Amino acid sequence: MSEQNPLEPMGQQARAAAHALRSVSRSVKDAALREAASRLRSSREILKAENAKDLEAGREKGLSAAMLDRLELTDKRIEAMAEGLETVAALPDPVGDIVSQYVHPNGLRIARIRQPIGVVGIIYESRPNVTADAAGLCLKSGNACILRGGSEALRSNLAIAAILRDALAAAHAPENAIQIIETADREAVGHLLRMDQYVDLIVPRGGKSLISRVYAESRIPVVAHLDGVCHVYLHEDADPEKAMKIVLNAKLQRPGVCNAMETLLVHQSAAPVMLRDICLALAEAGCELRGCERTRMLIDCFPATEEDWRTEYLDKILSIRIVSSLDEAIAHINEYGSHHSDAIVTESYEAAERFLDEVDSAAVYVNASTRFTDGYEFGLGAEIGISTSKLHCRGPMALEGLTTLKYVVRGNGQIRE
Amino acid sequence: MSEQNPLEPMGQQARAAAHALRSVSRSVKDAALREAASRLRSSREILKAENAKDLEAGREKGLSAAMLDRLELTDKRIEAMAEGLETVAALPDPVGDIVSQYVHPNGLRIARIRQPIGVVGIIYESRPNVTADAAGLCLKSGNACILRGGSEALRSNLAIAAILRDALAAAHAPENAIQIIETADREAVGHLLRMDQYVDLIVPRGGKSLISRVYAESRIPVVAHLDGVCHVYLHEDADPEKAMKIVLNAKLQRPGVCNAMETLLVHQSAAPVMLRDICLALAEAGCELRGCERTRMLIDCFPATEEDWRTEYLDKILSIRIVSSLDEAIAHINEYGSHHSDAIVTESYEAAERFLDEVDSAAVYVNASTRFTDGYEFGLGAEIGISTSKLHCRGPMALEGLTTLKYVVRGNGQIRE
Repeated sequence: MSEQNPLEPMGQQARAAAHALRSVSRSVKDAALREAASRLRSSREILKAENAKDLEAGREKGLSAAMLDRLELTDKRIEAMAEGLETVAALPDPVGDIVSQYVHPNGLRIARIRQPIGVVGIIYESRPNVTADAAGLCLKSGNACILRGGSEALRSNLAIAAILRDALAAAHAPENAIQIIETADREAVGHLLRMDQYVDLIVPRGGKSLISRVYAESRIPVVAHLDGVCHVYLHEDADPEKAMKIVLNAKLQRPGVCNAMETLLVHQSAAPVMLRDICLALAEAGCELRGCERTRMLIDCFPATEEDWRTEYLDKILSIRIVSSLDEAIAHINEYGSHHSDAIVTESYEAAERFLDEVDSAAVYVNASTRFTDGYEFGLGAEIGISTSKLHCRGPMALEGLTTLKYVVRGNGQIRE
Repeated sequence: MSEQNPLEPMGQQARAAAHALRSVSRSVKDAALREAASRLRSSREILKAENAKDLEAGREKGLSAAMLDRLELTDKRIEAMAEGLETVAALPDPVGDIVSQYVHPNGLRIARIRQPIGVVGIIYESRPNVTADAAGLCLKSGNACILRGGSEALRSNLAIAAILRDALAAAHAPENAIQIIETADREAVGHLLRMDQYVDLIVPRGGKSLISRVYAESRIPVVAHLDGVCHVYLHEDADPEKAMKIVLNAKLQRPGVCNAMETLLVHQSAAPVMLRDICLALAEAGCELRGCERTRMLIDCFPATEEDWRTEYLDKILSIRIVSSLDEAIAHINEYGSHHSDAIVTESYEAAERFLDEVDSAAVYVNASTRFTDGYEFGLGAEIGISTSKLHCRGPMALEGLTTLKYVVRGNGQIRE
């Protein structure tokens, strides 16, 4: 640790708050979360006023309409933040859960117990609601957090964080359990990523360039929420009705999210049977189609390039490839995909099982839409994002992903022979 | 990925082997492990001949007697390697274990299933038995591994790896599931640490300088097996008999290992009662004592410096500090320790519970020796090392630590509304 790190005081305070949180009971944490929800509601006008300054600056900087939309705090979005905190307050506290217990032949009781990780650094972009969502999950799981939002949302984020800190103080919980970096300075991210003495985990949420920078610079372990190049594969025996429903849902129900489909793979025997109808329905819904050569012999569409197979469009665009076999489909997904969420549509037991076993992704599906990869849908009650890391937490990251395990050993004088 | 990385072919082969391992059954993996054990036994003379060359080169290079001892392959150690592989063969296969299953209101069955991580890079020093131990655990958990042992053991490691690869071939398992870097070139470590396209996890086992280098250079997630600055704290109400037994065992039963005690903390009320007897017994066993000022008022010993509190002696040396309270003991451990294994000796329920909650280490003990932190003692059947990382795997790392979880979702046409 360089002694010149300007975030060092923040790191020290976070570490102290993390220690203090170990003796804060669940009822105090939940009271703080509910207090924060109530204060967000009653501070609606202040939040919107600060947000208006961000929006104005954003318009001056020439942010796109989509980015401005993401940035905006409406009454509905403030209410959703408040409800999110209340939902987290109502979830069971993972801290202290005994994951397993083993009694040693000599009588030692050896338990693995869930504990907070300590200090979590969260680096995110644009949407200000992440400030409340991420801080709430960290608090509930007993972690102190250091937040670093996008510069375009700085005033909104600072206003939300101030409310959260007031709520902590009001609930007699350590205020420094939630801290936010108060500068838009890009260098601050680098300072945070070098504080391995104080920060135990970095969770980046954002675009590829942010994530790449975090991976390149971080001296702290990272659980990344990366892009979703998700696939649906229609096997030769796919049920045409299920195929149609699942493809339309995975592509169009909400194209701008990470668990939406970006590439459709179709077995060569299924393509003549069902690809035309599916493409017609997609095109009617305004979806641009980009196909491989074999696809273009069946369907009128743009040519797909090698780059298309690796692209997360987050838009009404779909690349389509016809494959000769299940093996080719699995190989394509493992090679070009982002190991996020991938589905097969099939009536074959063997094809389904092979796909589930061999596709190396956080979530694999048979006969269902990839859109279900989500903390709420998976029964976790919340999520801080969807991890495409293989280690520590894979898939939706919620309270459990913010904990670590500790061996707790109770004896009465045992020594090793 | 730079195209000039000379390890790229090895990375590609490892990735292909990892994929092939997904359809290798437990019985084939176990047969390969038992075959390897049998071949290690029957190749004893070849192994000892290769090892003799390493030993000779080591003597010429002026390696210490302790290092030469660690390097040596005796009949007993070869037998232990073979037995280790048989033990791993007999352990349950973690792959495919369902960790939880949740049925969505819409009927989707959402399960979390244990899977191999993929490709594991293992970087280790001196002891050639790690080659067999680490490769065996990786194979059993369905991972391909790339091994990089210490240069001083190169010939021994290559000979062991060749036997393991022959056993894989004989059992009709993919030979490239076990690969070893065949050069002693230090740059090869750097090449391995940059292969994030092919390697999913790096496990370094060795001294501080190796681990620091790995952390600084790796673009791949690391689960480190770092030093053990372990503590025993004698609370004011410690039972003197338990205290004596536990201190002697934690310090002396095997001083050269990471779970041995390096610092003894004693409450100021306990020190006058029991410290003299304990120190006498330690000194009689040849242990050098280094105390804080308050200790030196009670005991004749060397002065301990600030550096002593951070030092892993791995030898018959002990630093001793008298503290004024449980809080001071906990703060000392969290500040100076390596978050490995720490014990309290107490008859107080409250002190025990607070110590277990607030000491932020992989393993925390009440009234037992720190020496129990070990995969075998904790009932895991084996270990690849003891992780001091907080994420993914903390404490002894065995088969489970070499797996990741995957969401497997089975539906019959579900889409997201």
